Amino acid sequence: MVATARAVVCLSLWLSVCQVRGSYIPPKMNKTIQDLLQHYSIPPKERFNGRPVFSKEPLTGKMEGKRVFMGGVLETYEKLIGQMLKQQPTPTPQTDGTNKRLASATAGTGSDDSVRTGLNYILERVQELKKHHYHEQEKLLQELNSLQHIKLDNRVVQSKALWELPWLYEEASSLDDANMLRRRRRRRRRQAWRVKTRPRA
Amino acid sequence: MVATARAVVCLSLWLSVCQVRGSYIPPKMNKTIQDLLQHYSIPPKERFNGRPVFSKEPLTGKMEGKRVFMGGVLETYEKLIGQMLKQQPTPTPQTDGTNKRLASATAGTGSDDSVRTGLNYILERVQELKKHHYHEQEKLLQELNSLQHIKLDNRVVQSKALWELPWLYEEASSLDDANMLRRRRRRRRRQAWRVKTRPRA
Repeated sequence: MVATARAVVCLSLWLSVCQVRGSYIPPKMNKTIQDLLQHYSIPPKERFNGRPVFSKEPLTGKMEGKRVFMGGVLETYEKLIGQMLKQQPTPTPQTDGTNKRLASATAGTGSDDSVRTGLNYILERVQELKKHHYHEQEKLLQELNSLQHIKLDNRVVQSKALWELPWLYEEASSLDDANMLRRRRRRRRRQAWRVKTRPRA
Repeated sequence: MVATARAVVCLSLWLSVCQVRGSYIPPKMNKTIQDLLQHYSIPPKERFNGRPVFSKEPLTGKMEGKRVFMGGVLETYEKLIGQMLKQQPTPTPQTDGTNKRLASATAGTGSDDSVRTGLNYILERVQELKKHHYHEQEKLLQELNSLQHIKLDNRVVQSKALWELPWLYEEASSLDDANMLRRRRRRRRRQAWRVKTRPRA
């Protein structure tokens, strides 16, 4: 009982911090997550076992890498919520009016229907963010994913890949050089910018 | 016969172009690929069917995205050559002297041992490039790969992921803003640099 109360306090604090920290999460989304967490309750010792689902390490690297990883995280949330919806019992038939009321209540009671409504709402928010701001990363992830499906034991694939290797090896080596050159240029521009904007003595 | 001769001419021309284009590919690597392609021969209509193993589309995007994809390509080559080596018959026992001669001949005769030596040499070149110039991308690819192994149907995972969502959603939204801000700053710096370096009238 004490543990549950502690978890609820922690959760409320955490969500408040998120709300204070930025204005990116709509209050309705925060509230829906809070309600869903009451339904998807787990013991605090499982929640705080020091093994988060999503590693934060890639989010400390360079911007484009961070954005590619974040694209992957959003894609995983899309699949995860899809799976959670699949695991829900089939919805009970209702009138239009009831459905509208449930949608506006955003998962208040913890019943199957409100959980479904809540999950659908969260899924929409994630898909919206992914579609409008992580579209480029989505395409790249698809291309990376297709690499996983190359038939490595097929002789035609092996021969074609060998044939393509000189160009790709060349490109991989020159990309590295171009990246170094780009960094150097950027450093020079930054220095020039600093000199230009420094107040004169 | 004519088709094979045409393929050999095409191959030689292609490898010569690669050799002329840049100095990134060691001549020994070019020669080894050429020799291996004689062993891994396929009909020209299969080679030139317009469906390359590796898409070139991600290599037309932004630098960091290109480098992440290239990291994935190098990783795939590593697995592919590993698979090709596995499919080779077990090597015949030889003295040290014979092995050294084979290594320097780099797959000249098309025998099983020279194919193995050639594949090992290409694998080393790919691993070298990947290790020294695509280390950061390798780590990111590992993290992206670990996203594929999240147990989406596990209740503890579902609950923990819901708990982590506010922070991640917040981060994903702010990363997009930070990216826009970074681009704007870079554009300003570029303009300042152009003004500074423009010859005076």
